Amino acid sequence: MNDRFLRALRRQPVDCTPVWIMRQAGRYLPEYRKVRAQAGDFLALCQSPELACEVTLQPLRRFDVDAAILFSDILTVPDAMGLGLSVQEGIGPRFESPLRSRKDIENLPAVNIEDELGYVMEAVRLIRAELDGKVPLIGFSGSPWTLATYMVEGGGSKEFSRVKGLMHDRPGLMHELLDKVCHAVIDYLSAQVNAGAQALMVFDTWGGVLTTPDYLQFSLRYLHRIVSALKATADGQHVPVILFTKGGGNWLEPIAETGCDAIGLDWTISLSAARKRVGHKVALQGNMDPTVLYASSGKVAREVERILDDFGQADGHVFNLGHGIHPGIEPDRVKTLVDTVHRASKRT
Amino acid sequence: MNDRFLRALRRQPVDCTPVWIMRQAGRYLPEYRKVRAQAGDFLALCQSPELACEVTLQPLRRFDVDAAILFSDILTVPDAMGLGLSVQEGIGPRFESPLRSRKDIENLPAVNIEDELGYVMEAVRLIRAELDGKVPLIGFSGSPWTLATYMVEGGGSKEFSRVKGLMHDRPGLMHELLDKVCHAVIDYLSAQVNAGAQALMVFDTWGGVLTTPDYLQFSLRYLHRIVSALKATADGQHVPVILFTKGGGNWLEPIAETGCDAIGLDWTISLSAARKRVGHKVALQGNMDPTVLYASSGKVAREVERILDDFGQADGHVFNLGHGIHPGIEPDRVKTLVDTVHRASKRT
Repeated sequence: MNDRFLRALRRQPVDCTPVWIMRQAGRYLPEYRKVRAQAGDFLALCQSPELACEVTLQPLRRFDVDAAILFSDILTVPDAMGLGLSVQEGIGPRFESPLRSRKDIENLPAVNIEDELGYVMEAVRLIRAELDGKVPLIGFSGSPWTLATYMVEGGGSKEFSRVKGLMHDRPGLMHELLDKVCHAVIDYLSAQVNAGAQALMVFDTWGGVLTTPDYLQFSLRYLHRIVSALKATADGQHVPVILFTKGGGNWLEPIAETGCDAIGLDWTISLSAARKRVGHKVALQGNMDPTVLYASSGKVAREVERILDDFGQADGHVFNLGHGIHPGIEPDRVKTLVDTVHRASKRT
Repeated sequence: MNDRFLRALRRQPVDCTPVWIMRQAGRYLPEYRKVRAQAGDFLALCQSPELACEVTLQPLRRFDVDAAILFSDILTVPDAMGLGLSVQEGIGPRFESPLRSRKDIENLPAVNIEDELGYVMEAVRLIRAELDGKVPLIGFSGSPWTLATYMVEGGGSKEFSRVKGLMHDRPGLMHELLDKVCHAVIDYLSAQVNAGAQALMVFDTWGGVLTTPDYLQFSLRYLHRIVSALKATADGQHVPVILFTKGGGNWLEPIAETGCDAIGLDWTISLSAARKRVGHKVALQGNMDPTVLYASSGKVAREVERILDDFGQADGHVFNLGHGIHPGIEPDRVKTLVDTVHRASKRT
């Protein structure tokens, strides 16, 4: 197996820097759009293990990436809790029944993962079989805070006034919600590991809208709990966990303290600055600005080289974008990115 | 005159911490909405010195704030360059003629400030006369990078793909644009000082979407030039400059190096962490999360106290939100904020 990715997460020497791309299975690929059209809509695609497997594997046929990531949505967990998810292209996710009262939160059911989210586990098993050891498979979940923002707001948000109102005025109730979501996330990620996921990533997309004390209390506390729980249940086999808080550059030290294996970084912080702050305690994943992929191939290659140089001669770097790839990107730019990472980072 | 604000910007002792609120003249005030309706639309309000003066003074009648800020829009400068600004409520600003080619940028005219933006200077003179020394008046501008994003994108943006495409693929042309905008901004701010502005703030609303090297090269370089130029022309009288890059927490040290007097901070970085990094070199302005104002008065007061404690017993703090106040806020929460700042920070 190509184990560069897992070795880098363990800060072990590699022959060259491993690379994968957030949302590497996605709308920028014509073959993805074809399967998506076939599925009817986005959620139907997520819910079909065969189609989810197919789109997970698509980028691996084009690019020499060092990991596959399960194709799914971060909102499957709240959907399984009965909130009624729908996803409209260009509009984003909406919940039919957002959480608007104490009762809504108190009545939120626990999730039976195999019953409600069996389709995800089936996809994981299928993908592992199809990958046949070629590269490792990453499972993932949204963070409790991030899932809670969607559950309370009812969809995407710019100002987060409802969920922050709940947090400021009824912190106890907010913690009750986060606690329930956190339990479900731990069960969900553990089930993914049992089904075959070889690494895990937790996406805290909206942690960066919080103040420092609110981040520590309402987001990081639960990330910490997830990391600890996964370590405890992993029966000797250690499945590495990557924590990614978008806009979390101010909090690298406490994120590293959770015991996670790697921190995902967006592009606003330099890898060298991040390394200085967290040392060799964790690996770092990132962090090219996704908009560089709109530029010429020459610029893409130069930016890859700059980022590799910025990390420097050391182990523990997984190359990635600083956020998901945009739907309008030309696939050949991704090829340039991936090939340049491998070429320019070749250990001599 | 109440000079707490100016003293704090100079890191001099004050009797209590000064406070003002970004967008303190705005839609959350019923008396503002009345004048706005009277003016017809937002730009007409900006372009009437009398009405702009009136709404500038409105928050001072309700709250004991320590500074007034000119009511205007950051996009008056590109509008004066002929891009054809319109602002629709709920949609945001649009330019009729965004910059889409090399020729568009090369043909961009220099701005004759007194001809094109005389209405702003007239508002500044009127406000100074009306304030009659009660509190200092802050003038402002958008940063060159931030103005350029709107000029190239044609309005607000989420991904900034056009302006970043220009920056990545034609950096020389991007600098030509920024250079022209920077000249206009320097002239604009100098004219505001000549008309009576006693402090200046530069809003770099979109600097935070850049990588570290891109921020230094395409945004901070021009902020630096602005600070230097304003120092050089101020004939002995020093007009303090506040630089505010939203999402700029990673770059406090280089921002402080520009020679600015104060750094505006959003709420994602703690004041104590920021102070540790920049020392006594600059004052700090901020940084309450604006969504706290949706919470109860008790919570607002506790959060004000937490932020004051976090800054600690030292000179050089101007209390503010970490971003503009939202239109849906109850004005009495602002009263709680302002009064709590003064009460809780009273020097003994």
